[in-house]
Amino acid sequence: MNNFNIAILGCGTVGSGVAKILLDMKSELSIRANHTIELKKIVDLFPKKSAAPYNLPISLFCGGGKDLSPEEAEKYINEIIQDRDIHLVVETIGGTSDFVLNTILSTLKAKKHVVTANKAILAERGQPIFQTAKENNVCLGFEASVCGAMPIIKIIRESFNGDQVKEISGIMNGTSNYILSKMQEECLSFDTALKLAQEAGYAEADPTLDISGGDAGHKLAILIKLAYGADIDYKDLLKEGIRNIDQEDINLASEMGCTIKLICYAKKTNDKIYAAVKPMMVKNDNFLSKVNSAINCVEVNNKYSGKHFFVGKGAGSLETASAIVSDIVFTAKYDGKISNLPETVKCELVDSDHFEFPFNITFTTEDFPGITGLVATAIGEQKINIDTVSHNRHNKENAVFSVITMPCTMGQVKKAIHEIKKRAPSILLDDPKVIPILY
Amino acid sequence: MNNFNIAILGCGTVGSGVAKILLDMKSELSIRANHTIELKKIVDLFPKKSAAPYNLPISLFCGGGKDLSPEEAEKYINEIIQDRDIHLVVETIGGTSDFVLNTILSTLKAKKHVVTANKAILAERGQPIFQTAKENNVCLGFEASVCGAMPIIKIIRESFNGDQVKEISGIMNGTSNYILSKMQEECLSFDTALKLAQEAGYAEADPTLDISGGDAGHKLAILIKLAYGADIDYKDLLKEGIRNIDQEDINLASEMGCTIKLICYAKKTNDKIYAAVKPMMVKNDNFLSKVNSAINCVEVNNKYSGKHFFVGKGAGSLETASAIVSDIVFTAKYDGKISNLPETVKCELVDSDHFEFPFNITFTTEDFPGITGLVATAIGEQKINIDTVSHNRHNKENAVFSVITMPCTMGQVKKAIHEIKKRAPSILLDDPKVIPILY
Repeated sequence: MNNFNIAILGCGTVGSGVAKILLDMKSELSIRANHTIELKKIVDLFPKKSAAPYNLPISLFCGGGKDLSPEEAEKYINEIIQDRDIHLVVETIGGTSDFVLNTILSTLKAKKHVVTANKAILAERGQPIFQTAKENNVCLGFEASVCGAMPIIKIIRESFNGDQVKEISGIMNGTSNYILSKMQEECLSFDTALKLAQEAGYAEADPTLDISGGDAGHKLAILIKLAYGADIDYKDLLKEGIRNIDQEDINLASEMGCTIKLICYAKKTNDKIYAAVKPMMVKNDNFLSKVNSAINCVEVNNKYSGKHFFVGKGAGSLETASAIVSDIVFTAKYDGKISNLPETVKCELVDSDHFEFPFNITFTTEDFPGITGLVATAIGEQKINIDTVSHNRHNKENAVFSVITMPCTMGQVKKAIHEIKKRAPSILLDDPKVIPILY
Repeated sequence: MNNFNIAILGCGTVGSGVAKILLDMKSELSIRANHTIELKKIVDLFPKKSAAPYNLPISLFCGGGKDLSPEEAEKYINEIIQDRDIHLVVETIGGTSDFVLNTILSTLKAKKHVVTANKAILAERGQPIFQTAKENNVCLGFEASVCGAMPIIKIIRESFNGDQVKEISGIMNGTSNYILSKMQEECLSFDTALKLAQEAGYAEADPTLDISGGDAGHKLAILIKLAYGADIDYKDLLKEGIRNIDQEDINLASEMGCTIKLICYAKKTNDKIYAAVKPMMVKNDNFLSKVNSAINCVEVNNKYSGKHFFVGKGAGSLETASAIVSDIVFTAKYDGKISNLPETVKCELVDSDHFEFPFNITFTTEDFPGITGLVATAIGEQKINIDTVSHNRHNKENAVFSVITMPCTMGQVKKAIHEIKKRAPSILLDDPKVIPILY
């Protein structure tokens, strides 16, 4: 059996998990891969700290176990890239820096396979990476980059080759789903739920990327590339997080038979991609509404085979690592002959104004008669059919009420709101909250 | 672009769906496969009838469209097997006859790839098929054989190569799940629910294979082969269907926070496989309990990446066909270099007496004092811890009550029941009903 030698760059939460599984399961993995899978080298700035959680042998670390300066680490990385005895490099440094990008590109150019969990760089700067892998005829494994251990990359790229992906809707950020679940199950405020998420290890000290929809957006951009071959510009993707969701929204959703979820949504019609990360009110008979806590769920709706749901842990050290190891085994087994890289198709990412959904629009207004009529008239004038005007909640200072529309575009809704503001500048006490309803 | 030519043997519900997708999506599939995917020939006894639902061109049918005798069909099949211009044969004849087995084996020996949805033959007579494919270095695609469009074969064979499958539990028979859902949601009797399933097209006129657990057993045997490499003897697999479930069981399950599902269960410990198809009481916080109607759901519990759930339509013409077409595209793309065939590992299928679960045992007895004590004593003597003795329901003639045990083996439960019968031969009015509880 030939050797298939691995180096790991960056031995944090995920990288150390990869090392652990490669060592623990070496003989089993080698049988599956028909190659002796050998972890040869690890580069990390702080070997002792990184080796500790899984008790990794310190001898694997470049530099013999002492802490490295960035320059030393770079030197070792370059040695690995030049080393003809290394067949595959695991990039678990993370981030979108030039350094990481160049490391990946140099590795691919040196005809080494790369496996990475780095969703951010693939979403924001993926184009040269995919192209360089293709030009150099080497594999780029990135199953771990979207929803950790859930095998959604392989499913979309390979399992649905006999079908056509019409629509993707997913819960792809565990932190946000944990917070929303706590807010809904235990009537907590956003801030209390966020604090709980941090205490439980589901949210970072700085949770911005998670709760802003940025992390979910990275994953959605990658799935769009896979399902539709489209290189969308990550910057142009609408990403709205859960920061503004409050108990008022949650109660209203519940009364409407819905659950609020942060949804990654994409659909292709002709050459146009409709996509966004947005909190949505998910109807309770949709399976996505039942997925709680830090769990991920992706729904893929296909032309021939209908709706599929995939549920699993979207993050975690060994969870994400297992997806990386799976990519390693597959690459070794087929000597890198299997390429998962999608063809690039010309597609246009449509402005979110063209997004078509039924919407729930919540207005907070002054409390006097006639406002409902004014609002409903302005909405009707934009050719939006109204499903329900519901739930007038009057308190001392204001009225809160919701208009649920039939399917219309976000642009129509915006125009209606603009008209209301123009006609009665003072009655809206807050910007109306617009939440799509997902059936 | 080279041609990749297909013949379809058997153009019933699934075969005709394959033909439709191959024709509808030809240009798209050809790009994905990097080969021109060409449907060349179809063999079916009744071309006109088979062509009708999707309006397939009659010119594709061997014999020019006229009905064929079995002898004529066999002649055309042999021509296809000899035809150097056919690269892949889709077997959608179905059944476990010698004729179908020999057709598959001859096709593989003629160095043609085979794609099939035939779970029965793979489960009952799969060994020579897998071996012949391997010896002849050709592909055997069978994604469609387990849960139709749900890509569970590829997931278990490839996506979890960096992990270890600890346990599989699945709802893998849509008919049974439809019937149980109707019984639970609408308080229907088994017979009424079965009739509804037949009217809705979810159950055959003769539903035996579905409601007896046989069909689910076929799928489970294939998954056991994939996950554990074990060639179990299908005959030895415990298969118990839903025929004996009644409203009494359903009410009791509901009071215990459970839902009754027909579960395909498999676990490997050392070299031993524990497996069965059995109705189980699934705890309502287990995702499987939420999957209703004719939908399938497979839970895979892995060592590193934890629990995954895959939900989708397990049957249907185009649904199953899309899985077959996906196998065709993948085989064409890689010129048949990718083999999904598992290595065979020596494993023993453990007798179901060793099956360990918490159990619910329902006793129907004569109604007089002392019986609960007698039953509980006999159970305790088998070193079974009792969790709850619940729900004494006394009516004029008898008492119905349930004992919920802590985890123990089926063998222990059987012995306890045997003891009760021996000590008080007349008190049991019916065989106690033993249902495992799935957390």
